[in-house]
Amino acid sequence: MNTRQRQPQAAVPGAGDYLIASKKCELMNLQYFLQMGQLVQCISNLVHSLQRERGASNVLLGSGGCKFHHQRQQIVAESDRLRREFEQALTAIHQQMTVHPVSSRLLNQIASALHGLADLAELRGAVDRQTISAHDATESYSSRIHRLIAVVFEAADTAVDPGIAGLLVALVHLMNGKELCGQERAVGSAGFSSGRVDSALSRRMVHLVEAQERCFEVFASFADEDSRALWQQVRSHSREAEIGRLRGLGCSSGRVRQLDPQLADRWFAVMTERMDELKRVEDALEGCFHARCIERYTEARHSLSHQETLVASLDQQGGARQPVLILCESGDEATGQPGDAWASDGVGQRFGRSIFDLVQQQSRRLQAMSDELQAAKEALEDRKIQEKAVLLLMEHRRIDNDEAHRLLRKLAMNQGKKLPEVARALLAMADVLG
Amino acid sequence: MNTRQRQPQAAVPGAGDYLIASKKCELMNLQYFLQMGQLVQCISNLVHSLQRERGASNVLLGSGGCKFHHQRQQIVAESDRLRREFEQALTAIHQQMTVHPVSSRLLNQIASALHGLADLAELRGAVDRQTISAHDATESYSSRIHRLIAVVFEAADTAVDPGIAGLLVALVHLMNGKELCGQERAVGSAGFSSGRVDSALSRRMVHLVEAQERCFEVFASFADEDSRALWQQVRSHSREAEIGRLRGLGCSSGRVRQLDPQLADRWFAVMTERMDELKRVEDALEGCFHARCIERYTEARHSLSHQETLVASLDQQGGARQPVLILCESGDEATGQPGDAWASDGVGQRFGRSIFDLVQQQSRRLQAMSDELQAAKEALEDRKIQEKAVLLLMEHRRIDNDEAHRLLRKLAMNQGKKLPEVARALLAMADVLG
Repeated sequence: MNTRQRQPQAAVPGAGDYLIASKKCELMNLQYFLQMGQLVQCISNLVHSLQRERGASNVLLGSGGCKFHHQRQQIVAESDRLRREFEQALTAIHQQMTVHPVSSRLLNQIASALHGLADLAELRGAVDRQTISAHDATESYSSRIHRLIAVVFEAADTAVDPGIAGLLVALVHLMNGKELCGQERAVGSAGFSSGRVDSALSRRMVHLVEAQERCFEVFASFADEDSRALWQQVRSHSREAEIGRLRGLGCSSGRVRQLDPQLADRWFAVMTERMDELKRVEDALEGCFHARCIERYTEARHSLSHQETLVASLDQQGGARQPVLILCESGDEATGQPGDAWASDGVGQRFGRSIFDLVQQQSRRLQAMSDELQAAKEALEDRKIQEKAVLLLMEHRRIDNDEAHRLLRKLAMNQGKKLPEVARALLAMADVLG
Repeated sequence: MNTRQRQPQAAVPGAGDYLIASKKCELMNLQYFLQMGQLVQCISNLVHSLQRERGASNVLLGSGGCKFHHQRQQIVAESDRLRREFEQALTAIHQQMTVHPVSSRLLNQIASALHGLADLAELRGAVDRQTISAHDATESYSSRIHRLIAVVFEAADTAVDPGIAGLLVALVHLMNGKELCGQERAVGSAGFSSGRVDSALSRRMVHLVEAQERCFEVFASFADEDSRALWQQVRSHSREAEIGRLRGLGCSSGRVRQLDPQLADRWFAVMTERMDELKRVEDALEGCFHARCIERYTEARHSLSHQETLVASLDQQGGARQPVLILCESGDEATGQPGDAWASDGVGQRFGRSIFDLVQQQSRRLQAMSDELQAAKEALEDRKIQEKAVLLLMEHRRIDNDEAHRLLRKLAMNQGKKLPEVARALLAMADVLG
């Protein structure tokens, strides 16, 4: 019996090999996220440039082609350069990403983002020829930007290391907040330039301000200390007070108000400054992400080589065990008593204990990581649930995105509950009500 | 601008390529689960044989080495054969599993299971020499079986296809239920052989019966119709009534009761029959799992080749677009009006629309799959949470596993809540209370 058992064991990997494989698996995943960090940085840069391009296009269209003509061309060239960088980063990670068996959602989101970029030339042509309204151009750019940010969301969703997942959650919320800020700039610009703010426009601004705040809250709860400190600096800058005043003019609801169209330039300038500052926070966060990936990768590498040494030394002890075993077995045949010395020599047990300790340790570590990951996953899940609830409301009540968001907020306020909770309840009800 | 844009697009993969990559990713994952099915089948067979070996060892030890000597040797040989099959299945999937970047938990669980099998010879030697108590032998076998079943649990946790994940959830709960049935057989045998059932033993039996029921409930809610029908047959067999009567004798709580020791043989026989029947349900479920994997794999393959054809034909249209573009661009240089014919020729748009439709379709499909997957994931999560809550109670109150389960059930009953809900609340409180 023992003889039969030992042979396959020599041929197939044992407990120690699978422990090492488990560690290697973690290492591989960290390596993947190191490269993913580059892709995310490229997306962040490209999004920022597209936001600038959207702003410049808006001003160009709003001024009947007079303003920002030259600046816009420079920004377009910059967007193209950053787009090529994004595509290069994609190529660099392509192989790793396509053998990752759980990234179908990520890959499809990349397809969607690339598709958005493929007909950018059409959109730009329409802006050049002024055959598109500022509103439609804004929508067009926003949808492309949204698809790029969604790639970061999916990347965050595939992370298994809690530290890495947390920073990606912070980043995706910061990117979303900044994008809402960009939309607020566009909406405000349109209002200020026209010299009048109606209630629909002011409602939209209120929504964009509130949605931004919620994104920044999630960002702050997952970001590293340095990025959070930088974010506090942005918040306490005197520019924010001016933005607050201008927002007050734009957001005061109810009737139509007449405004000084000169405010439009000032609004555009301060909001652009704000977005540039937010980009600096984003860069700091990405720097921290990169550093953390390297740190975790180095740790995991050390831990792996340490374990490899341990397992190898235990294997040698295991190897030394073999002759003892054979001795027992030959004695065995003679006496008919199988493997008497087996348990008493203790080597087997000592060997077993140590490997098992390592396996248990790895098991506890993986469990702790998975517990810690929970918070990051929940933040992503909350976001998904809210978006679904908003879509549901839009369809059922035939209202637009803003109104749906407002309705959801109102429900939460009335019930004294948090937004994700209400969103979840709403979706559950929809399942029941059909 | 357009010229610059087109060049990198030829070099880097485009939207269509990523759509195909997303589909391939799904296919790869299904292929992985096809092989995982073989591993799971081997685990199910090995577990069943180890359960029989445990039972035979118990009877042997209980009879002072008189009973089941020959049968046990046959079962041991069968276990060894099935163990080799398990190791072969592991070797077959080894490569695929170790490049799967999210399987560190699965790999570590395999290490733990293999470790349990590595010193099986020691345990058997101790049973042969009768230097181990029936109770300790049972515990030893149970821990090894538990680690093997935990491999199936981790495999279920890595599934992304809801149909496949659901069947694995059904399977892991059926395996757990059957294992609890095996433990009940051991506990009952000990009680009936000794001729007396004390309150500790009867409490343990009540716990094992209840825990089995809960496992079978989850099994039934995720299993396919055929396996469920087979399960109903097992339930309605006359043997179940007899088991119920014997359980009644064993479970009646309170005082110590004297029983006819002859009942032990009958109990062992009917419970063994029950476990063999449960194994048949397991086999049916595994057959269904295999069939579903093949079905899903075939579907995904067809869908992939269909999409490849579509994308290729769209790419050709895209290729036909190129001269049009160049024409526009040369016209562009002459007139200073960039790409006028671009939007109006419509080819670009038609091309764009179709690829985007495919991407959107894949996106909706993946979202629907992920929604559907939720239920399976929650069942696994519930199980994890309950196990954690039980561990917490064991540590805090210094009680054993059974008592902790009982306390949790009592809490749920008193509060009129479901077990996972109470377990979750308990863990949340522990976080707060430290």
